[in-house]
This record gives sequence, structure tokens and C-alpha cells, in this order.
Amino acid sequence: MIHPHALVDDLTAIGPDTNVWAFAHVMKGASVGSRCNIGDHAFVESGAIIGNNVTVKNQVLIWEGITIQDDFVGPGVVFTNDSQPRSPRMPQAEARYADRSNWLAATVVEKGCSIGARAVICPGVRLGKYSMIGAGSIVTKDVKPYTLVVGGPASERGYVCSCGQRLSGHYQDADCGVCGERGADRDAE
Amino acid sequence: MIHPHALVDDLTAIGPDTNVWAFAHVMKGASVGSRCNIGDHAFVESGAIIGNNVTVKNQVLIWEGITIQDDFVGPGVVFTNDSQPRSPRMPQAEARYADRSNWLAATVVEKGCSIGARAVICPGVRLGKYSMIGAGSIVTKDVKPYTLVVGGPASERGYVCSCGQRLSGHYQDADCGVCGERGADRDAE
Amino acid sequence: MIHPHALVDDLTAIGPDTNVWAFAHVMKGASVGSRCNIGDHAFVESGAIIGNNVTVKNQVLIWEGITIQDDFVGPGVVFTNDSQPRSPRMPQAEARYADRSNWLAATVVEKGCSIGARAVICPGVRLGKYSMIGAGSIVTKDVKPYTLVVGGPASERGYVCSCGQRLSGHYQDADCGVCGERGADRDAE
Repeated sequence: MIHPHALVDDLTAIGPDTNVWAFAHVMKGASVGSRCNIGDHAFVESGAIIGNNVTVKNQVLIWEGITIQDDFVGPGVVFTNDSQPRSPRMPQAEARYADRSNWLAATVVEKGCSIGARAVICPGVRLGKYSMIGAGSIVTKDVKPYTLVVGGPASERGYVCSCGQRLSGHYQDADCGVCGERGADRDAE
Repeated sequence: MIHPHALVDDLTAIGPDTNVWAFAHVMKGASVGSRCNIGDHAFVESGAIIGNNVTVKNQVLIWEGITIQDDFVGPGVVFTNDSQPRSPRMPQAEARYADRSNWLAATVVEKGCSIGARAVICPGVRLGKYSMIGAGSIVTKDVKPYTLVVGGPASERGYVCSCGQRLSGHYQDADCGVCGERGADRDAE
Repeated sequence: MIHPHALVDDLTAIGPDTNVWAFAHVMKGASVGSRCNIGDHAFVESGAIIGNNVTVKNQVLIWEGITIQDDFVGPGVVFTNDSQPRSPRMPQAEARYADRSNWLAATVVEKGCSIGARAVICPGVRLGKYSMIGAGSIVTKDVKPYTLVVGGPASERGYVCSCGQRLSGHYQDADCGVCGERGADRDAE
């Protein structure tokens, strides 16, 4: 379902059963999987890659170089892909922006990761599977799987189950009291 | 006044003399009072409740479970209602999202509260009347009335008058040098 | 180029070769120079002043009292112009909002400054030329030229060249290993 106030530049970029809501914009050259939900005012740039069952909440900004596997992404999350940004039209910056390899740092969000509201993901990081990023965090380095990080810059605060529940110990040891998932069954990769 | 580029799914959700500006979206099932101002790119979800004389600045995100009494709300403020978010379409999360009582944590913003730009309000808090939240703060717990909080996580930094002025002492003691409001007249409830 | 889904209230406010993208809104009474790029969902209020070659990325909020010289501005940046905001329709706030001089604090972003994603610029500051503001920072005071600031509140972390490169020493001493700009040629004003 493409909302009548949404803007999808190329419908072939969107998988089946994916919704795009009002005032969201998916550019030509983006890739969005099936059964996704792209919230109001979200933006998906050419070259961004989004998997299946992904919930991109309102106002999320996703650029070229960002890959999101099967995940939740919270409201107002901003990704980034350039750690030394300058206006590309400044003479001093022309050499830098002549070649993507000079500036574009790719980010990967692995399966099942949740990112809290208004978090900022700095360029070139990997967010491990089923990790959870606290609201308003500023993520400056890789996050391990099943790990909760909070703050600016974000630091480790504990572990979470794939169902979202906080765990009482390391994710490879602690069984989940809510969904019953066993620590021994969680894979570090 | 509904701006021609605004989207109001159900005009009966909007009180008299309320403005909704360009690219804002008020969903069906939301409730917005009279003499409010809903800025550009704001989003008000079904089930959100907004009182009278409320200034919802641009890009504010207001969800089900959020109640805003008669207030100012600053630009880019994000509310939240789920402290352990997962993509609802993940098999591990199905049980959690089958019932609102499992995940929805309500927030109340009391009369006269001001929230600074880009603040994030974590799930399940109460912001006391005439309190003031600093720009960019991350509010993780209740805020007392007439109290200024700043930072991530937000902590108390002093007191403010209902007119917005910083006070030299506790809000129930300090009279305001600007509007003349007396500390003894401020109610702790 | 004005995108068909953009909203420019007065085309004479926009200089030649400036692009305004989808769902962006430039109000009447704003001033935008030439060869600028105003990204999706950005908002430029009446009275805001933007120079030439400025890249206003997506969702940036620019208000009356904000002047941006020839710069980059990152995604989701929020400017502010009122340090004690209250809802203007509250009786206690009427006197304050009767006169702009009571509440409006102007901000200047000097030539070549870069502002990282989701940064908040508090009221009444000056961001020096070619300075760089880290992603997610909360800027509460002036930033010196060619200076990198990070954090909430933002503090100095080093120096950058006009091309964006980190410098090994003070900006008036250190030559740039990338673009060759000499420290002695950088002006403190």
C-alpha cells in the first residue's frame, strides 16, 4: 500500500506487501524488501538497501551506503555516511567528493536490531543482530549482537533476548524468562 | 485552518481555531483541542490526546498513549511508548504485540510544560506542570512541576516560573521578578 | 529546481540554481541564495537567511533569527531562537511574546561550517567559519573557527581544515596533509 501522499519514485524498488505512509519518500535506486512498513516523513535515498519485515518508523533518514537487514528501526533515527562532511560545492571539497571512496563509509544493521527514537548512527558501523540501541543514543562504533547500548557516545549496558527482553547475564548464557529462548542457542555471529 | 498541504484524516478530531500546517498529519482517532497549532511535518497518531492552546512545533512525533495537556511542545520532540521495541512482524515478538498491555507505556505532559528542541521522552513518564525540558534532553523518569531538567539522561538543574523565567530558589518559595507570580501560590500538585 | 512535492510560498525568496526537494517548505519572507540545496522535509521560516552554495540536508529546521552563510548543514539539525519557550497563547506568556526583543536570540553560522546529523543549536550562538559540529551534539555556546566540537553540551576536541580534514595541531599552525592549506593562511576572524 502506497499512501496517496507518499512519494515512491520507482515502484519496482518496493517489495510486495510493503506499506509506504504519508509524506515518506523512497527514491529511485533504493531497494526495499517485502512486508516492510515505511512510516510518515521517512526518507530512503538511492542506493540504500532494506530487507524484509523492516519497520522504518516516522522520520527515519536512510542514505546510500546503509544496509538494513530484517529489523525494527525506531522513530527519528538518522543514519550517516560521511565522517568529515563539507558542502560538496565548496572548492576545497571538490577533490573529496569527486570519488565516493574518499568519503562514503558504509553501515550495516543486522537482522532483528532495534534502534531507539532519535538515535544517531555515525558512519561506518555495524549493529549486531538483535542488538538494541537506546533512545537518543549516538552510536560511534560497532555494537555486538544481543547487546544493549545507551548514551552519547553509546556504551554497553547489558544484553537482550531476540524477543526484546532484558537478560540477567551474557546473551550466550542467560535463558529468557519471557519467550524461553536459550542462551546456548544464541549464535555470536 | 488546515493548510492545503496538511493531512487530517478526520476533521472532527480537531477542535475549533486549531491550525494544522504543511505536511503535518493528524490521524483518524487522534484528539486535538481548540486553539492549537500543529506545525509542519508533525505527526499525531490515532489514540494520542492533545488539550487546548497547545503549540506542537515542527516534526514533533506524538503516539497512542501520549496525553498532552495545555502546553508548549518544542520542535523535533519525539515521544515514545514502548521500552523494548521489536519489529512486530518478527515471530519472536508476536506474543508481545498481541496485547497492548504488554508493551504500551503511557506518558502525560501536564499543563504549561515546555519541551526543548529534539528532546526524547522515554516511555511511561509524567512531565509536571510548567516544567521545562532542555533542548536535546533524554527524559527517562518523571519531572517535578516547575522544574528545569537538562541532559541525557535528564537531571534537575533548577526551577522555572509558569511564565518561563528561571527562579532563584525552590518554586514554592521564590517569587518571579518578571511576571510577579508568588512562590506561595504555586501548587505542588 | 523546485520539486513538484516541495512547497515554496514565494519563488522570489529562492536564488538561481537552488534546488528545493520533496516535502520541504520555504516560507514567504525567507531568503535563500543561489546554488543551494534544500533537502526533503526541511523547513525554512520567514525571516531566516541562507547564503549561497548551502547544503541544507533533510529535516533541518531553520527559524527567524538564524543566518547561515556559505555552509554545509547536516541532516536533522535543529536551530532554536528562544531560550525560555512557553506556549504564546498562555496568559502568563503574553507579555513575553508581545515583543520579539524579549525572546528572539539570533544565531549565525559562518562560512564553511559543517553541522553533524541531529545536532541541536541552542539560541544565540555563533558557529565560527569552517568549524565542525559532531553528530548529535548540543551546542550551547559560540564555536571558534576551524574547531571541532562534540557532545552534549558540545566541547572542543580539536581542529579541522577548511577541506574537512582533522589537523594535528592548532588551526593557525598546522598545515593540511590532504589539501595543502597552510595554517599561517588561516584567519582567526
